[in-house]
Amino acid sequence: MNYGIVLKVLGNILMVESTLMLPALSIAFYANEHDRMAFLITVIITGVIGFIMSKKTVIKNNVNVREGLAIVALGWIFASLFGALPFYLSGSIPLYVDALFETVSGFTTTGASILSNVEGLPHGVLFWRSFTHWIGGMGILVFTIALLPALGIGGFQIFKAESPGPTKDKIMPRIKDTAKILYTIYFSITILQIILLKLGGMSFFESMLHTFGTVGTGGFGIKNNSVAFYNSTYIHIIIGVFMLLSGVNFSLYYSLFKGGWKDVFKNEELRLYLAIVLMAIIAIAVNLSVTSYAGVFRSLRDSFFQVSSIITTTGYTTANFDIWPTFSKMILFTLMFIGGCAGSTAGGIKVVRILILMKLIKRDVTKLFHPRAFISIKNSGKKVTDETIVSISGFFTLYIMIFVISTIIISLEGLDIVSTSSAVAATLGNIGPGLGVVGPASNFGGFSSASKVLFSFLMLSGRLEIFTLITLILPKNWTMEI
Amino acid sequence: MNYGIVLKVLGNILMVESTLMLPALSIAFYANEHDRMAFLITVIITGVIGFIMSKKTVIKNNVNVREGLAIVALGWIFASLFGALPFYLSGSIPLYVDALFETVSGFTTTGASILSNVEGLPHGVLFWRSFTHWIGGMGILVFTIALLPALGIGGFQIFKAESPGPTKDKIMPRIKDTAKILYTIYFSITILQIILLKLGGMSFFESMLHTFGTVGTGGFGIKNNSVAFYNSTYIHIIIGVFMLLSGVNFSLYYSLFKGGWKDVFKNEELRLYLAIVLMAIIAIAVNLSVTSYAGVFRSLRDSFFQVSSIITTTGYTTANFDIWPTFSKMILFTLMFIGGCAGSTAGGIKVVRILILMKLIKRDVTKLFHPRAFISIKNSGKKVTDETIVSISGFFTLYIMIFVISTIIISLEGLDIVSTSSAVAATLGNIGPGLGVVGPASNFGGFSSASKVLFSFLMLSGRLEIFTLITLILPKNWTMEI
Repeated sequence: MNYGIVLKVLGNILMVESTLMLPALSIAFYANEHDRMAFLITVIITGVIGFIMSKKTVIKNNVNVREGLAIVALGWIFASLFGALPFYLSGSIPLYVDALFETVSGFTTTGASILSNVEGLPHGVLFWRSFTHWIGGMGILVFTIALLPALGIGGFQIFKAESPGPTKDKIMPRIKDTAKILYTIYFSITILQIILLKLGGMSFFESMLHTFGTVGTGGFGIKNNSVAFYNSTYIHIIIGVFMLLSGVNFSLYYSLFKGGWKDVFKNEELRLYLAIVLMAIIAIAVNLSVTSYAGVFRSLRDSFFQVSSIITTTGYTTANFDIWPTFSKMILFTLMFIGGCAGSTAGGIKVVRILILMKLIKRDVTKLFHPRAFISIKNSGKKVTDETIVSISGFFTLYIMIFVISTIIISLEGLDIVSTSSAVAATLGNIGPGLGVVGPASNFGGFSSASKVLFSFLMLSGRLEIFTLITLILPKNWTMEI
Repeated sequence: MNYGIVLKVLGNILMVESTLMLPALSIAFYANEHDRMAFLITVIITGVIGFIMSKKTVIKNNVNVREGLAIVALGWIFASLFGALPFYLSGSIPLYVDALFETVSGFTTTGASILSNVEGLPHGVLFWRSFTHWIGGMGILVFTIALLPALGIGGFQIFKAESPGPTKDKIMPRIKDTAKILYTIYFSITILQIILLKLGGMSFFESMLHTFGTVGTGGFGIKNNSVAFYNSTYIHIIIGVFMLLSGVNFSLYYSLFKGGWKDVFKNEELRLYLAIVLMAIIAIAVNLSVTSYAGVFRSLRDSFFQVSSIITTTGYTTANFDIWPTFSKMILFTLMFIGGCAGSTAGGIKVVRILILMKLIKRDVTKLFHPRAFISIKNSGKKVTDETIVSISGFFTLYIMIFVISTIIISLEGLDIVSTSSAVAATLGNIGPGLGVVGPASNFGGFSSASKVLFSFLMLSGRLEIFTLITLILPKNWTMEI
């Protein structure tokens, strides 16, 4: 591996992070709260270390697949290691491992928290906490739309032709062009949501923070009872709709912008995504109404918000769904695995993979009737190669296996099966809250440090489409007998 | 579809079933119990209807893939519909839908029961109940070793070359030859276990019934607390070992018989199966010991028996594992999905599929390092085609999807998530007992009739490698856009 270039890029990432902490630093100083020094020290440390690393002389400038993935994985890890400092140094989170968990949860746009009283946090820390979602969301868009299709990992070759930007052979210039377009879309959506929340009577500061958590599909609440704090249907709908928007493949916004309505309408992933959302909302709303959880309107409102929040892997809550009937809980638990569309800020397995796997099953069944037929699988009219199908199957299997093995490990904590498995599903899928002990009314504070490290690993694994992190763990000369 | 031949074969199956009821009938008359008439009526009805159906004039004698699968699926269903009559007519199970559930559970070698007091059953009924396991086990061996590889379903093409018997092009004579060999092995194992249990002090009748449940990996207990009734380490070990033996691909016994020790030792599925069993036994035994569930010896004995029982999807119990610590329960829950080896009487996903999927993941990771490398996946030294890999992926995905969707449906019963999901896993995987409400200390009697029908469908689906039942459900001219 070309360690020089990896180190150099990581240095640049740290310098950018240091810069991105300046708003939080400003707020801390403006509010004149005790977290001022924590931010000042962190900004300096991060900036200086980043600067030193970036000065590394690099002999070869080329980046191959493995180095690209290492940069992405280490980028997220380094950003978290330094991003945790303000929480730790300000005393907001006394244990560094807890602060790291919270920061990984932020940058991976998970939203799982170890804090029980977020309302007591100083404003700078509160801002930084939500801002990590926004940064992470932006990072993941570039990673999944610009980088992954070029590398062809986990079935992401499916988007090779669909990504916006020029399709030159060189990866780097293409990534930059794509990134620019994505940033513009991301910024626009962010600004629009802030305005709409402000119009709903929320303060500018809270509008901003909720928007960060929404467009990044993160979900760190800034009130102890999350969005339930705002008993306003308008606010629930705005956040709900923007969560759903953030769970859509951002390439589609680019197509829309270019006037490609047709492309958007015929996009099968989007249609399946919306169909699942609609069915889940109705099923849960009916279930809640008939089990006299609440009236029809309230059932529908809560169902809409929770379904939007969970399928987009955001994790905001307006109701304690842990006390909902089993049927509703099971639907939410299933949505945790499905996740949003690929190329969005949402986590989970991703709707397009589910779509292709459903088509694979359909084909297998059809082949029983027509054993000699050659049937090719299409996605939105484009043929999907067998290689991509196998990649997607591999991803799905690995996702399930990691879920199962991690659940077995975490079950050593001695909690019940539902809490244990949903905690794993909620971190691996970057959702945030789970059920039971990690339900909406609770948090991850009670786990051992070892479990928190495993959860952090799961959040990173899920966020980076699993394979990215695996490349980093395996030894340099890893080859194997199959 | 050639309905004539399907009807004719089903008639033959019913006549065979009628004959197979004669031992139970004899026992009922010998014991002079109230179930005599129930058996007499059933034998006559089943025999006569079977005879009439078998007399159907058939114009064409050929059987294609779809007809073959229809015969298998309908065969299991018809056998269950008539096999349920003795339970119903004798009054042992007052509701027909319950009797059907119990019979499907028997023939699919699941062992899930709706009965709470099996000790109160007359001897004929008790014999018939366990005997359905033995018949079902024999049926499944022929289906999976002789028929499925020839059809190439759900990845079963993997055994195409491995199956014993002449490998002519014609399916029918090959199936007959293979069946003969399998029956011989199945009989021998049965007789050996009966003798060994008899030597352990069990009565001949009870030895026989336990053996039926073991070699068929069924698991209907004939005591209210299953095998826990016998507080004998010898009996636990005999049943445990024979469960494990019944979870092995029966082709290997044929190889062994032919002197092919090498083939057996280098069989990767067998090695993975034994490795999983060993690891699970140790992990649970340690977990039970340190959580002071019992002493080391007792922990090891219970762990050995329960792991053997669950991974082979038998379902006999010597301990109420529902009260075990979460870690142990999670391992057992995972084993419910893995199941035994393909070509055994065990259910579940099957070890060989897990093996191939693990290799698929390994290959995907390797490809990250060597993007241009062409790596072929091998099973026990033989190359696995991409078509087979895609088939296996499709099977795995479908298995998980059916599990999830069924759990959502069953959750309408309002039970907790663990009971609900484990009930689905235990029926789909043909295990029998699950956790919580369907744990070892309880049964399936409390579910609604609708749920019992769904469970019956799941037991059949799992038993018939899922695709078989799907072909039956889909309309005749089913074709689709992919």
